[in-house]
Amino acid sequence: MRKVQGACVRLTPKNELEYRFRRLQTEMAGAGLDAVIMLQNADLFYFTGTIQTGNLYVPASGDPIYLVRRDFLRARMESALSLVLPFASPSELPGTVAELGHPTPARIGLELDLLPVNLFRKYQTLYPNAQFFDATPLIRRVRMVKSHYEIHILQDAALQADKVHRRAAEVIREGMSELALACELEHLARLEGHQGYLRMRAFNGELAYNQILCGADAAAPAFCNTPLGGMGLTPAFGQGASYNRIGRGEPIMVDFASCYDGYLVDQARMFAVGSLSDRMRRGYDDMLRVEELMVRLAEERPTWGSIYDACLALACQLGYAEHFMGRVGSQVPFIGHGVGIEIDEYPFIARGFHDERLEPGMVFAFEPKLVFPGEGAVGIENTFYLTETGIKSLTFSSQEPVIL
Amino acid sequence: MRKVQGACVRLTPKNELEYRFRRLQTEMAGAGLDAVIMLQNADLFYFTGTIQTGNLYVPASGDPIYLVRRDFLRARMESALSLVLPFASPSELPGTVAELGHPTPARIGLELDLLPVNLFRKYQTLYPNAQFFDATPLIRRVRMVKSHYEIHILQDAALQADKVHRRAAEVIREGMSELALACELEHLARLEGHQGYLRMRAFNGELAYNQILCGADAAAPAFCNTPLGGMGLTPAFGQGASYNRIGRGEPIMVDFASCYDGYLVDQARMFAVGSLSDRMRRGYDDMLRVEELMVRLAEERPTWGSIYDACLALACQLGYAEHFMGRVGSQVPFIGHGVGIEIDEYPFIARGFHDERLEPGMVFAFEPKLVFPGEGAVGIENTFYLTETGIKSLTFSSQEPVIL
Repeated sequence: MRKVQGACVRLTPKNELEYRFRRLQTEMAGAGLDAVIMLQNADLFYFTGTIQTGNLYVPASGDPIYLVRRDFLRARMESALSLVLPFASPSELPGTVAELGHPTPARIGLELDLLPVNLFRKYQTLYPNAQFFDATPLIRRVRMVKSHYEIHILQDAALQADKVHRRAAEVIREGMSELALACELEHLARLEGHQGYLRMRAFNGELAYNQILCGADAAAPAFCNTPLGGMGLTPAFGQGASYNRIGRGEPIMVDFASCYDGYLVDQARMFAVGSLSDRMRRGYDDMLRVEELMVRLAEERPTWGSIYDACLALACQLGYAEHFMGRVGSQVPFIGHGVGIEIDEYPFIARGFHDERLEPGMVFAFEPKLVFPGEGAVGIENTFYLTETGIKSLTFSSQEPVIL
Repeated sequence: MRKVQGACVRLTPKNELEYRFRRLQTEMAGAGLDAVIMLQNADLFYFTGTIQTGNLYVPASGDPIYLVRRDFLRARMESALSLVLPFASPSELPGTVAELGHPTPARIGLELDLLPVNLFRKYQTLYPNAQFFDATPLIRRVRMVKSHYEIHILQDAALQADKVHRRAAEVIREGMSELALACELEHLARLEGHQGYLRMRAFNGELAYNQILCGADAAAPAFCNTPLGGMGLTPAFGQGASYNRIGRGEPIMVDFASCYDGYLVDQARMFAVGSLSDRMRRGYDDMLRVEELMVRLAEERPTWGSIYDACLALACQLGYAEHFMGRVGSQVPFIGHGVGIEIDEYPFIARGFHDERLEPGMVFAFEPKLVFPGEGAVGIENTFYLTETGIKSLTFSSQEPVIL
């Protein structure tokens, strides 16, 4: 860590950045790519240690070149890369790359899952004879295996998650609106270093960083690709906390994506004023059994899809075919998702992923949840880390539902 | 307004939606487009009244078709469009459109400024013989002229902005961190209906919805396309409020994008503990003169670029060539931007826009600001509305700097 403007700022170390782009270059060799050009904020942060408007050019071998339009001085201050250069526009990219001794790339990787068509066409004119490929699967594979450096940051985010959990237990009252509860927890999380913004890679990936939902409201599906949705405050952002007020005996879902130094952990816990009905309590306990099954299976490092299949089968066997992971018609085909800089990283503990196995270093949120229309939602979410010797939970708040 | 889940929710009226898509169809006729297919959240909200995952197909004539994957029931409940239909995937789009009696489109508009390459390729295979065009300039032109219905919502957002302003005057103290101040104001705005998320259309458009900056920190540029930047809490989100503490006599910039029912207004005001230096106070007063010049010019409905040129010339004449709209090397080429559902709508009061004129119904934020490296930033921001008879400010908080 270095001091920037008087505050203690965590800057990604040089050897960490080297480890990352060397691994990308290994992936590139496998895919026969001569270069990857990155533009997106999350990828820039991962591979440069900062986010300044510009292009990161990663050649097949040698050091990456970070060309920065705005703000160059800040990129120079925050990035440990050797080659950080000012530029005015992408049109300068081919010339600079050539001057630095690299051959003209014939096979170029771009972030085609998110790069807009108009921007893509600009890069096609820069390299009119090149073939273009989607670099995102390669980038995702590098980013899905977290380093010890990243795990330490994720542990800081998990500390924040526990503070949010304990604050919820202090402030929840009958008659309080979901919104008022969300405001209390957002206020605390922000003071504890939350950036106030959740990154989701998927197109249209606008996601509130918390879903504070109680009673029947928690069963309302939304456009976001999550098992629960919530009504939100307006159809203009129809997800998350609403003006709905907490009633006695209703299940209260506090699902909160904490964030520290750019890294997310996802945690969800249950609360209730007075009591939880037997049906809700049993549903919750059954979701803990689904979590236990995942933990047991994960030790064997199976495929992502096989964990999904086994956990879905258990949920169905327990009688939740029409409640598991959403309301009928709005059920999502996943139970877990990688987390890191973005909320939708690899691995996907989801239907159909039968070729990809769990590996040490992977970090993922696992969120078995049940939805009972008209009644509410129950479930649990923790963020797990696969080590060489087993699986550990990064989030650590008590799993016991809090009855107030 | 209708009651949804017990809360009073503003739903976009049917005649409002009709007015909007008829105007788009007029633009489409001018561009010779047979259809526009929209996918992006902000556009969906504007043209359907809700945001559910799906495709909005607007034919050259006749009613739009909203095909919804998730959540269909919610789309049906929130959208006043006649043709809201469930679908499982975009591959069903051509068949449904044909069944409803529309010819196969030969010239199709898509949101090419933001549609990712991989998604675009999917739509190319759906209509292999079609030509594709960028529909965004058409969409932007429709959206830039606000209806009375939209102005009422913007007035609600301006009420929230004034509450934020008054709260700032209550809570600012020497030694308080920018972050703590931001947290207080975010908490209030959220309770007052702010969705907690700011929509920016531009690629990588991650923008904090407030810039609470004091002293030298306010002069730190960031990657976001704004005159000020701020250090933020981490290089992972290097913009906005930091841990920097408010000192006596420092200019404090409270720039806050309030948001109500999906609509944004932008307002910035100055505060200080103790006093403002003569240089800062004079700079601020000079920015008011730039604002007055814009107001005088706008009545004549000139081109966007000519307002920019005249205001920049005045700022330079007043001696601020190296301070206006950012630090040297990071100055932005605009002084104002349209606001509505997104923070970067038409019109752009910016360099080079010499073909587009101001029109009644346009709403834009105007933000003349000065940056003094090592010292701080001063300036003003209001959101204006051009009527048939003149220009009005939607934001109305006192412009006098608050000295505490």
